[in-house]
Amino acid sequence: MTDTAALVAQLAARVQHLEDTLAVTELLTAYGPAVDSGSAEAAARLWIEDGVYDVDTGIMRGHAEILAMVRSAPHQRLIRAGCAHILEPGHIRIDGETAVATNKSQLIAGGPDGFRVLRITANRWELVRVDGGWKVARRTSRLLDGRAEARDLLARGVGPAQW
Amino acid sequence: MTDTAALVAQLAARVQHLEDTLAVTELLTAYGPAVDSGSAEAAARLWIEDGVYDVDTGIMRGHAEILAMVRSAPHQRLIRAGCAHILEPGHIRIDGETAVATNKSQLIAGGPDGFRVLRITANRWELVRVDGGWKVARRTSRLLDGRAEARDLLARGVGPAQW
Amino acid sequence: MTDTAALVAQLAARVQHLEDTLAVTELLTAYGPAVDSGSAEAAARLWIEDGVYDVDTGIMRGHAEILAMVRSAPHQRLIRAGCAHILEPGHIRIDGETAVATNKSQLIAGGPDGFRVLRITANRWELVRVDGGWKVARRTSRLLDGRAEARDLLARGVGPAQW
Repeated sequence: MTDTAALVAQLAARVQHLEDTLAVTELLTAYGPAVDSGSAEAAARLWIEDGVYDVDTGIMRGHAEILAMVRSAPHQRLIRAGCAHILEPGHIRIDGETAVATNKSQLIAGGPDGFRVLRITANRWELVRVDGGWKVARRTSRLLDGRAEARDLLARGVGPAQW
Repeated sequence: MTDTAALVAQLAARVQHLEDTLAVTELLTAYGPAVDSGSAEAAARLWIEDGVYDVDTGIMRGHAEILAMVRSAPHQRLIRAGCAHILEPGHIRIDGETAVATNKSQLIAGGPDGFRVLRITANRWELVRVDGGWKVARRTSRLLDGRAEARDLLARGVGPAQW
Repeated sequence: MTDTAALVAQLAARVQHLEDTLAVTELLTAYGPAVDSGSAEAAARLWIEDGVYDVDTGIMRGHAEILAMVRSAPHQRLIRAGCAHILEPGHIRIDGETAVATNKSQLIAGGPDGFRVLRITANRWELVRVDGGWKVARRTSRLLDGRAEARDLLARGVGPAQW
């Protein structure tokens, strides 16, 4: 292999890593607009078919249960009152065919006294490469109300790289 | 063309796509600091000269009207009380010479009872490539107070790719 | 040098710039999860050993003082009540071996009346390339309560590029 060919191969690996990071970002940034607009399919398809969304208020397994959550009466009431699931950019660590993104989100909703922050949530997104793209295998979300579990989830995402 | 030259041409296209995505991110991340600091020119020049900023509270056409909004008495009162237009990372879709970014923003402002969330807003940014960079051609922003229009705008940004 | 070799060298520089931008993003996105989980070491090591964190409430110099802040009684009370330091994506400008990122953050914390926005803060992150990575040399943070100093800090980050 010539020097140029070797450099090109190395560059291709670096570009792949950048593409992976931005693909994970695209995935995360689609979640908020999807749930706030009631786009149930757009939300569910961010997960693999049997993906898990494990929230302190309940656990959803697979597309059907995520679709049902978005279509549920409580969620529909929330979006009719006006709500925004605002997500920070994720702290993203790619490791070959899997990745972890860690971030926080807040749920702001309209009510009689104006907009209020209803929740602040710690999120751990465990992702897998699928068909050249990325999907969520498991998202774990815990209310940041002082519980150790929520802090542990954030600490794990920013600790030494051998996660 | 040799194999290496073909691979290099393909890599160049992939790098261009990454650069486009990050350039759109740079554009979006400049908006909040610009309006919160009263940097009228820095805000206006994110748009093309005849760009449109269509908000539920009024429509601005061209740099002069965007400059006037930042310099207006209501906006100046807001920044003197302390305010933050906090923007999520955008969900970005590049399509050649145009792009669409979808996100939500919140307006937090100081007042007698401390900081309050005054608005949560759905945003659709329609962007065009100009002189090798990117500018906003039209930004449409709608209050997330339950109105269908705001939800539609978010749904459109995360739906199937044929937008 | 052949045309292909020249193109490869140019591509390598463009990929380096993209990597720098994403490395700065990784640094910024680690801060919130680190302080909200009380991960003192993970927070401190975002700075160079003698890095400065200059906040309106006090100035910290070097890792020991940043570690002490995270471990302090006031900060520990905050995380036990539940808190989220939510950061916007940064507006990032790389200039060779240094970079500046500008963004806003909010501190949301739990209390008897639910979650409240305690602070909105303007941030200027001055970064340096170290051992192939990036670290914070100085972060300047000012409360957005109308003080000119906070606005100036934001304006500087989005003004004409000759900063």
